[in-house]
Amino acid sequence: MQRILSSQLPEHLGQRVTIAGWVHRRRLLKSVAFLILRDRSGLAQVVVSSPSLRASVEALTEESVVEVAGTVAARPDGVEIVEPELRVLSEASPPPFDLYRPGLTASLPTLLDHAAVALRHPLRQTAFRLSAAAVGGFRSTLDQSGFVEVHTPKIVASATESGANVFAIDYFGRPAYLAQSPQFYKQTLVGVFERVYEVGPVFRAEPHDTVRHLAQYTSLDVELGFIRDHRDVMAVLRDTLSGMLDAVGRCPAAATLGLAMPAIPAEIPAIDFADALALVGASPDEPDLAPAHERALGEWALREHGSDFLFVTGYPMAKRPFYTHPDPARPTASNGFDLLFRGIELVTGGQRLHRYPDYVAALAARGESTEAYESYLDAFRHGLPPHGGFAIGLERFVMRLLEATNVREVTLFPRDLHRLTP
Amino acid sequence: MQRILSSQLPEHLGQRVTIAGWVHRRRLLKSVAFLILRDRSGLAQVVVSSPSLRASVEALTEESVVEVAGTVAARPDGVEIVEPELRVLSEASPPPFDLYRPGLTASLPTLLDHAAVALRHPLRQTAFRLSAAAVGGFRSTLDQSGFVEVHTPKIVASATESGANVFAIDYFGRPAYLAQSPQFYKQTLVGVFERVYEVGPVFRAEPHDTVRHLAQYTSLDVELGFIRDHRDVMAVLRDTLSGMLDAVGRCPAAATLGLAMPAIPAEIPAIDFADALALVGASPDEPDLAPAHERALGEWALREHGSDFLFVTGYPMAKRPFYTHPDPARPTASNGFDLLFRGIELVTGGQRLHRYPDYVAALAARGESTEAYESYLDAFRHGLPPHGGFAIGLERFVMRLLEATNVREVTLFPRDLHRLTP
Repeated sequence: MQRILSSQLPEHLGQRVTIAGWVHRRRLLKSVAFLILRDRSGLAQVVVSSPSLRASVEALTEESVVEVAGTVAARPDGVEIVEPELRVLSEASPPPFDLYRPGLTASLPTLLDHAAVALRHPLRQTAFRLSAAAVGGFRSTLDQSGFVEVHTPKIVASATESGANVFAIDYFGRPAYLAQSPQFYKQTLVGVFERVYEVGPVFRAEPHDTVRHLAQYTSLDVELGFIRDHRDVMAVLRDTLSGMLDAVGRCPAAATLGLAMPAIPAEIPAIDFADALALVGASPDEPDLAPAHERALGEWALREHGSDFLFVTGYPMAKRPFYTHPDPARPTASNGFDLLFRGIELVTGGQRLHRYPDYVAALAARGESTEAYESYLDAFRHGLPPHGGFAIGLERFVMRLLEATNVREVTLFPRDLHRLTP
Repeated sequence: MQRILSSQLPEHLGQRVTIAGWVHRRRLLKSVAFLILRDRSGLAQVVVSSPSLRASVEALTEESVVEVAGTVAARPDGVEIVEPELRVLSEASPPPFDLYRPGLTASLPTLLDHAAVALRHPLRQTAFRLSAAAVGGFRSTLDQSGFVEVHTPKIVASATESGANVFAIDYFGRPAYLAQSPQFYKQTLVGVFERVYEVGPVFRAEPHDTVRHLAQYTSLDVELGFIRDHRDVMAVLRDTLSGMLDAVGRCPAAATLGLAMPAIPAEIPAIDFADALALVGASPDEPDLAPAHERALGEWALREHGSDFLFVTGYPMAKRPFYTHPDPARPTASNGFDLLFRGIELVTGGQRLHRYPDYVAALAARGESTEAYESYLDAFRHGLPPHGGFAIGLERFVMRLLEATNVREVTLFPRDLHRLTP
């Protein structure tokens, strides 16, 4: 008989059906036993009355995979399966922690060591369903605006974007590196498609053990040409985030979690870097915002503007990568921005240089030769329009959305300084 | 003035508009000059009559980026821009080959060396627009069937799936490897979501220099639980390919290319491996199909079944990975399949083992210890349903669709034995 999902049971009241899933929990009462079966749509209760079947259920372990044929019966708060027949598809060893409790109480390292089991907990699953919905919203928003999805190399010849934090590879006996971002490629592809995005892994040999850094994460990269300046990029970012949040909001899993959806105004408030330093009482000579500053700014944005998001614009050129476009009115300030989401940096973006001579000058000013950048500079030598873009860290987005305390809670199989398995 | 696209010009007949793009071509006739501007939507003709503007156009190089304000006028076969004003956004060096000719005549290595320019050719662009549409169709088909998109680690602790062809990384001083596939992770995640897919890079240290192998390619990976056997997987694959082809067919770029869309029957024909060997006149002891065999089978499928696709089923267990499920009726044959597309292997898939003891036995039979597989085996130890899946090589799909002769023609920035840039 064709399997149906537990969520479809109410449509089959009184009928004989087959469901299949994991033994989520057993309740062995005196007169009757209940088997709670979990499938991808939720939970179903199976009522076991016959003594022989009860013996089978007693012998089963949680997380074993079973198929149950039975009749759908009404109960006060829904439906259940009665007169069941049971077929075991896979027997399981007892799980290292209980999945049927409301929360997972094991320590994070234990949960990560046993990700194959821990991820099955309904709350954990939900985080990743929301993550997938967010990525779907990212893509559909951009698809509707003429962007083309691209796939770029993750193995690169030189550690160009920033010399540090790069993983070295043996590439057929030659040195190569894992790409820290698709930055150079997405700019090059503005020359081809004008508007591109990529969803893919990026790699940072991050030597710090923090709650928000990973050695591999999923970067949602966007780049677009024919902009006036960084404000056009900020407008696309705002609409993209709004599309991501809409998609999350439409996801049934968001209701399950009782998720407080963040407020995103039609225009996200923006504060100049110098004003931001003054607002948090930091010295005007600070080259960057510390995490505590970001938190204070996030609170200010919510209080003053009713926004969970805040742009910080006009970062000093000295702290931004060489391809950053300066603010034409203030050459030491950049047309680069960060976006804070609930007081954490979520997005970095800005306008880039687009003229070849400007690249040559920018590299010279940093004491770098153009040689390592030859194939990148080829794009500018042959004509790129004014352009800019941004990159959203997917795991950080989900982390802030769910108000998780550690990015590893919202990463399927995290990679960091210490963790290379599972 | 707000920029419009060249494709929007007919809607603005008689109006003053601004367009922007690349100088695709200039035609300098005696009495008049034409500037052909290329943007992401196509080409536009700008008529230059004034002597001073003509001098500017003469000084311009192809691929420079310009903004043109002008009036939209009718001409016999469409519209053009008259009374133009010109603003140069980026000056370009002359391109290493002409982009305005119908085809690119430079050699493939030259085109790949200058990918930043070559990819701008309208025919090249089109291939990648179709590729993006195909991936969109892949996702939307699976999204509608309850699949969850996942992102898995590309850095792994051991070269488990096959010892060979793996890139080694220095991972914080420890040895690690680039993932050859998300195989182990997608199986593990069947235990969480039942149905998952991933679009991501996979890495093969492929020592052979062929027209169809790359060191990095985009793998479209699918895995699903609660199947009867591999035939359920084949049905999902058929529907997924059909969704991909529908999406490609809806893409305006497909019409531009005059693409011959492949025929995909409601049920793709399937031939048993032993019968396939007999059909092509190969020895029944052959362990695998040679490329020439695949070509012959592709021709046979088109001739006999009117299908550009052909399943080959029942591959010998000896040639399939250890996680392959045997055919219960013939233990030396597998429930694994390949899918040929126009005579080239496009997809590998099958039913996998799902019970923990079967994995222990399968590894023992191959003389492998379970130790290197501990975190993978954790998923089976704790209950996985019968499951299977497949992986489609995106670049190969597009290669066969466009009948390209080299997979590098349909890869933005290919990586192979010799090529690490751009």
